[in-house]
Amino acid sequence: MAELTRLSLNTATVRERWDLPACIEGCARHGIDWIGPWRDGLAAYGVERAARHIRDAGLKVSGLCRGGWWTAGTLAQAIEDNRRAIDEAAAIGAACLVIVNGGLPDGSRDLAAARARCLQGLAAVLPQARAAGVPLALEPLHPMTCADRSVLSTTAQALDWCETLGEGVGVALDVYHVWWDPEVLTQISRARGRILGFHVCDWLRETRDLVTDRGMMGDGVVDIAGLRAAVDAAGYDGPIEVEIFSSRDWWARDPDEVLSVMKRRFERCV
Amino acid sequence: MAELTRLSLNTATVRERWDLPACIEGCARHGIDWIGPWRDGLAAYGVERAARHIRDAGLKVSGLCRGGWWTAGTLAQAIEDNRRAIDEAAAIGAACLVIVNGGLPDGSRDLAAARARCLQGLAAVLPQARAAGVPLALEPLHPMTCADRSVLSTTAQALDWCETLGEGVGVALDVYHVWWDPEVLTQISRARGRILGFHVCDWLRETRDLVTDRGMMGDGVVDIAGLRAAVDAAGYDGPIEVEIFSSRDWWARDPDEVLSVMKRRFERCV
Repeated sequence: MAELTRLSLNTATVRERWDLPACIEGCARHGIDWIGPWRDGLAAYGVERAARHIRDAGLKVSGLCRGGWWTAGTLAQAIEDNRRAIDEAAAIGAACLVIVNGGLPDGSRDLAAARARCLQGLAAVLPQARAAGVPLALEPLHPMTCADRSVLSTTAQALDWCETLGEGVGVALDVYHVWWDPEVLTQISRARGRILGFHVCDWLRETRDLVTDRGMMGDGVVDIAGLRAAVDAAGYDGPIEVEIFSSRDWWARDPDEVLSVMKRRFERCV
Repeated sequence: MAELTRLSLNTATVRERWDLPACIEGCARHGIDWIGPWRDGLAAYGVERAARHIRDAGLKVSGLCRGGWWTAGTLAQAIEDNRRAIDEAAAIGAACLVIVNGGLPDGSRDLAAARARCLQGLAAVLPQARAAGVPLALEPLHPMTCADRSVLSTTAQALDWCETLGEGVGVALDVYHVWWDPEVLTQISRARGRILGFHVCDWLRETRDLVTDRGMMGDGVVDIAGLRAAVDAAGYDGPIEVEIFSSRDWWARDPDEVLSVMKRRFERCV
């Protein structure tokens, strides 16, 4: 099982009831060493205030969620926004900037063009990311999000993009997105030296929503410990974020309860 | 665009309002040459009566839906049920038996074991399928169904299984399940000589349900004509089934309207 010192709270897990300062305090109170904030929470709180608060609370930042979205609006707009995201990630000392690449542009059926546009955007901001010391963590999202969220769908594809882009780019692997893949273990092994983040939650057998119906570790069907062992065997020893979008269950609960359960389940299932 | 003579009605498209005899009559009335029945409809009508009715109406059977489900109940039960399905497919002259392999067994997180069990079941019934002249069409299902419907998730994986199993096995490719795959065109090309069926519908950008929210061709984001051209280029010139599970739209409409729209959209989008 993974050491509890690797546990990170992705703030989306309690996003309906805690703002960023409450998340920082919550992590400190529960003895959680890492936090994975979102940009909206950072903007609401103020980047400098957040950076100071996180530092003062003794927390480390596993990653900032999220850059990317190359296919919404114009590419120039997306590039500008990602430049700001890189600055924000640097300001809070994030170990990486998580990139969700975006789906098909409105009205388009051209996956190849959408993917090319993502690579174009990534290449455009990569020099700045390298200079800032903020690696870009490409997150393959579940194929069910291909139309509207991510034309990057598999670990193999993400690693292909890393090879195209070169230094300063890696992958963030979320068990929710990759567990089903017949190639997942082979590709995790191939990812050695490229793994920038590892996210956990669970896939509920009776999933009711394509976005907000994730489960707590242990409540679903994913062999989380097996994937964690594979990621470790590929050389990753960094933080492990718990990121649960759950409109029907966890978002409605008291966040202190969520963090307590999360810690127990992390020790038992991750 | 594909010739209208290749159009097949998968009866699930109108399953809420037409039984099998109504589907047969509907196809005849609308000048649709092919039909893809389901086993429950066949059982309700009687296999011999259905076979005669289909023949008398001048229809051909593109495929019988469906065998498989190796991971529910015992393997021996599944094998027995698949033997019956092969007999039924032979009795109605189906071009293939479509196989949906099943998800993880209840309570299991072991994908490798579930996949091994599917291969074991397939190998057990394959001699009978060969003797009956009923090829088994392995259908990779969308990764979002991996927990509860299909541990066979990609075209590449389906072709790997075909190679393991040998003669008498091929693939049924449904655009809904495979469109997102970065390897789909490469794998369709690899599938030459193994393509037993091609199914169409569309992926709605705002998908609300993991099973019953498919769109009519043209209403979603899939480059259907592009995939059809790839399948043709790989040597497939057989029937093309329209299979739409749609609890919020098409299932509620008058089936005669559905068939009329389906024909127009087939000519325009496939």
